[in-house]
Amino acid sequence: MNWKEYREAGKMMVDYIADYMETIRDRRVFPSVKPGYMRDLISDRAPEEGESWSAIFTDIERVIMPGVTHWQSPQMHAYFPALNSPASLLGDMLSDAINCLGFTWASSPACTELELIVMDWLGKMINLPEEFLHTRPESLGGGVIQTTASEATLVALLAARTEAIRKYKSMVDEEFEDADLNRRLVAYCSDQAHSSVEKAGLIGLVKMRYIETTDELSMRIDYLIETIKHDQSQGLIPFFLCATLGTTGACAFDNLSEIGPICASQDIWIHVDAAYAGSAFICPEYRKWLNGIEFASSFAFNPSKWLMVHFDCTAMWVKNSQVLHRTFNVDPLYLKHENSGLAVDYMHWQISLSKRFRALKLWFVLRNFGLKGLQEHVRTSVQLAGLFQDQVTLDPRFEIPAARHLGMVVFRLKGDNQLTEKLLKRLNSEGKIHCVPASLKGIYVIRFTVTSHLTNEIDVLADWKVIQETATTVIAMFTTPTSGSGRRTINLAEAKKLTPDFGTSLLLSNSPMTPKVVNGSFVAIFDNTEVVPEFVRHLGNSLRLVAKESPSLRRRIKGLMLTDKQYSLDSRIDLMNSIMASLDLSSSDGPKQRRSESSDDKDDAIREEEE
Amino acid sequence: MNWKEYREAGKMMVDYIADYMETIRDRRVFPSVKPGYMRDLISDRAPEEGESWSAIFTDIERVIMPGVTHWQSPQMHAYFPALNSPASLLGDMLSDAINCLGFTWASSPACTELELIVMDWLGKMINLPEEFLHTRPESLGGGVIQTTASEATLVALLAARTEAIRKYKSMVDEEFEDADLNRRLVAYCSDQAHSSVEKAGLIGLVKMRYIETTDELSMRIDYLIETIKHDQSQGLIPFFLCATLGTTGACAFDNLSEIGPICASQDIWIHVDAAYAGSAFICPEYRKWLNGIEFASSFAFNPSKWLMVHFDCTAMWVKNSQVLHRTFNVDPLYLKHENSGLAVDYMHWQISLSKRFRALKLWFVLRNFGLKGLQEHVRTSVQLAGLFQDQVTLDPRFEIPAARHLGMVVFRLKGDNQLTEKLLKRLNSEGKIHCVPASLKGIYVIRFTVTSHLTNEIDVLADWKVIQETATTVIAMFTTPTSGSGRRTINLAEAKKLTPDFGTSLLLSNSPMTPKVVNGSFVAIFDNTEVVPEFVRHLGNSLRLVAKESPSLRRRIKGLMLTDKQYSLDSRIDLMNSIMASLDLSSSDGPKQRRSESSDDKDDAIREEEE
Repeated sequence: MNWKEYREAGKMMVDYIADYMETIRDRRVFPSVKPGYMRDLISDRAPEEGESWSAIFTDIERVIMPGVTHWQSPQMHAYFPALNSPASLLGDMLSDAINCLGFTWASSPACTELELIVMDWLGKMINLPEEFLHTRPESLGGGVIQTTASEATLVALLAARTEAIRKYKSMVDEEFEDADLNRRLVAYCSDQAHSSVEKAGLIGLVKMRYIETTDELSMRIDYLIETIKHDQSQGLIPFFLCATLGTTGACAFDNLSEIGPICASQDIWIHVDAAYAGSAFICPEYRKWLNGIEFASSFAFNPSKWLMVHFDCTAMWVKNSQVLHRTFNVDPLYLKHENSGLAVDYMHWQISLSKRFRALKLWFVLRNFGLKGLQEHVRTSVQLAGLFQDQVTLDPRFEIPAARHLGMVVFRLKGDNQLTEKLLKRLNSEGKIHCVPASLKGIYVIRFTVTSHLTNEIDVLADWKVIQETATTVIAMFTTPTSGSGRRTINLAEAKKLTPDFGTSLLLSNSPMTPKVVNGSFVAIFDNTEVVPEFVRHLGNSLRLVAKESPSLRRRIKGLMLTDKQYSLDSRIDLMNSIMASLDLSSSDGPKQRRSESSDDKDDAIREEEE
Repeated sequence: MNWKEYREAGKMMVDYIADYMETIRDRRVFPSVKPGYMRDLISDRAPEEGESWSAIFTDIERVIMPGVTHWQSPQMHAYFPALNSPASLLGDMLSDAINCLGFTWASSPACTELELIVMDWLGKMINLPEEFLHTRPESLGGGVIQTTASEATLVALLAARTEAIRKYKSMVDEEFEDADLNRRLVAYCSDQAHSSVEKAGLIGLVKMRYIETTDELSMRIDYLIETIKHDQSQGLIPFFLCATLGTTGACAFDNLSEIGPICASQDIWIHVDAAYAGSAFICPEYRKWLNGIEFASSFAFNPSKWLMVHFDCTAMWVKNSQVLHRTFNVDPLYLKHENSGLAVDYMHWQISLSKRFRALKLWFVLRNFGLKGLQEHVRTSVQLAGLFQDQVTLDPRFEIPAARHLGMVVFRLKGDNQLTEKLLKRLNSEGKIHCVPASLKGIYVIRFTVTSHLTNEIDVLADWKVIQETATTVIAMFTTPTSGSGRRTINLAEAKKLTPDFGTSLLLSNSPMTPKVVNGSFVAIFDNTEVVPEFVRHLGNSLRLVAKESPSLRRRIKGLMLTDKQYSLDSRIDLMNSIMASLDLSSSDGPKQRRSESSDDKDDAIREEEE
């Protein structure tokens, strides 16, 4: 295709995109395809000869769209928002066409300079203290666009590690090896923090403490103080705390005003992860949660979530960019200059050398919407979440177990977790609306997030009606008249007989701690397909070798292999924990502390299958 | 802007992009703006009210384009290619519009499935061993699209670290702390490896050995063996080696067939960084460099460099994705299933949780060009580089100090480094063509890379003529009739008098080792602006405190502060090395091994200023 043909194809694509966005309501929000669906639709190798654009274009509807989860749909209430907008798309079209790599100022001066400026714009929009901005000539602070909030958290943790090691060496002994000191470093976050905090700790190879939260799911300050003291008494060095503003599970908030002074007194680097909630701080009425931000060393949120800028775009600010240089750079000599705000080389602010010209789409969006336009968008989402909350409150079968903040409501059917889980699975399998669950201190909840720019009051009321009707069906199926409280547990075989949709669910993959437990996709979705027995066979084969000496494990695996059913999220996790505990037992001589805590009805269900 | 208005604006943008690409020859390839240029052109805060699209659109030419380094220009010979193409742009337009986040299969099944398939396509195109692909049901291997080659290297190093620690613990003692073991890990690369390898080592907190290269700039095997043995004798654990196929400095190649067996015998994870050269392996005639790939555990190259796919898009393959899971995941239970190629959750294969739908643009490009179309593109670039090489060879003033491979030629004026440096600075300041330098074992060279799809024979010949003419000017200016050999050194004050353009150059920021030394943009570009004295003042202030006891340093700093000139790349590096050495001396009691190796004319030039 030459550029003349591109003019035509590009305009076709513009119309296709506009059509897609204007008719997205007609599409099923969550697809009904099974894993591997695409292999049957396309070749297993690239063509020798080039294909025409029309052949490629036709395949969008034939191959791609059937497997798309439509994040722009007004019925998308899963995860957090990931929105696009015309201005954002136009910005990236241009950025892709220019396709410059912004590692140094010189590699494309406009790329770096626009990023410096729009990061200042955005910082001012949320009223960030000036020391986080590039504006002051003497300032060491400034903003940078990172790829993801995960990356921002990792960069912050690594910078804090560098700083802690440097300070310790200068105070105690310069001859210490960095890796030696590293083993003494301890980081902190709440038990509601995003899984990427844990990932950053794994990469940084530092200890991570998960501080228990209050009933409001906010980090408990007394526990934090106690844990820090205990760690220090063990000769460890507290160095980093990731505070969350707007947790993934329930949009709860850590209290910066309380955490701040504690960390300041112990020289602990505070990184604030406001991935979702940060966008709301453009509205003054939501800035209360930013109180105490002056104690933070770094702050990040995702305009790619709620500010009409499409992914990827994570805004990160630091107070002292020198530390970033020291982290990614052996002998950083030109730090002073770097911070004059004139010719920053962003390659020293990030993991990768190169970066895209992402400032363009952000600039286009901030200008096209204006501050007021974006405030209106945020406020509308919050108001719609309020409307949803009101509806839930009116139905006595439901409860809202955590305070609603901003654009997300967590709710559940009163009673046993399994009932809510079944409700969610059924909702998702029908594909009219799409939500994901979270587990809040053991309570299974459905997260309802107002995501799309298109969602309106009529949508929210209609979606709630779908939920109510589905609840009625599920309750009728899974509770007997005598167990109106919902407390009677349904065994799996029975559940399976009652509904063929049982087992179709979605795990919130980025809910706290989940990545360490499961394959999010697999566990939560599939039921009764050929995938399951094959997987079970694999698992059984490998475990059988290890577990020769464990009769209980053998029995358990046999049970797993005999059945082709998909266990529910919870039962699968419990089962796997048991197996892991058994493996521990079989691979060492003595008993271990770590034991399964599940010996309830789910195990019974398995034994049932064995019999 | 609504979607109706987007139809119009989007089509305007399509035409703008086509115009840009069709007339890119008319633009100066490297901009002439000074740092901070943009702050004078736009507001320092976001607008309250939204602005019209026409206002935004107008600013593209007014604000952005004057500061763009035009990577698509046929006169762009700097760095490595970063190309776009119509098919690639169309793919990302669609991807941005869908804007799904591909962390799990379920978060948008098409996103994961297409990535699995096109990574298999691409792997087959370069004839990668099948164990790297997703195709075999029993395979643990597979491909993934990472953001950058830097990230791929980091992921590989972290995975190797996980594996080394796990193996050591299982062989010696499970109770070892990971961080304790980490201090014993040693990684290897050649002294020509990309700076991102060093960065990965800093993040992973492991020791890094830079193995000296042969005259062909290939890792010396005898030194590798010796270093590994020495490290082992010190109780250290060799665990990772990054081999480079196509170095940044000169497109040199490490020899996998030689390195492979050594690493295999010591259980060292080989990661192959073929960022640029990897694309060439779609042509069978260049695959000789892939011999020995069967010894590697991971392999990466950038379709975003030479395969007409715009940035970002790094293709990475691993033989055992279980290790990635173990790296980013505490208790990875479902590994077997993950690798069935059916429902991979890519969040366990990368640093970030979320990822863009990048497989679309890659799919569009592979189909639209076809294997033959892409082969033709690669072969044309190589042929044009050959043409350039022939021209250089015909001019006795020039030499080519390293063998030319693929689409890049390194060349220089015979004689002193400074002469070539001056040639390059002058070329770049004129902006007709754009190149960057590299330092090959102390020899300053200009890299001439054939990058753009638009570059043709006429361009290459014309660009060579520009270089020849500029060389004539530079030689006339900087050499006296009696120093025709080019060996006489010009002192800086003299150079400055002779030409006002002196000092305008570009550092190759990603040339080996540079990030640890300097601010790439600043050092290499600016001359005689108000920035320099201010920077020097800063530097002086901070150094003065540290170096109170060092008269030699004081003298040096005084010299630096008295002059407002920009030192050349090399002299600045030398000077800084000296200062660092002095700092070492002043901050401890005894003399250190590390001393400046520069006491030549550059220091003389500074003393001259002092007198």
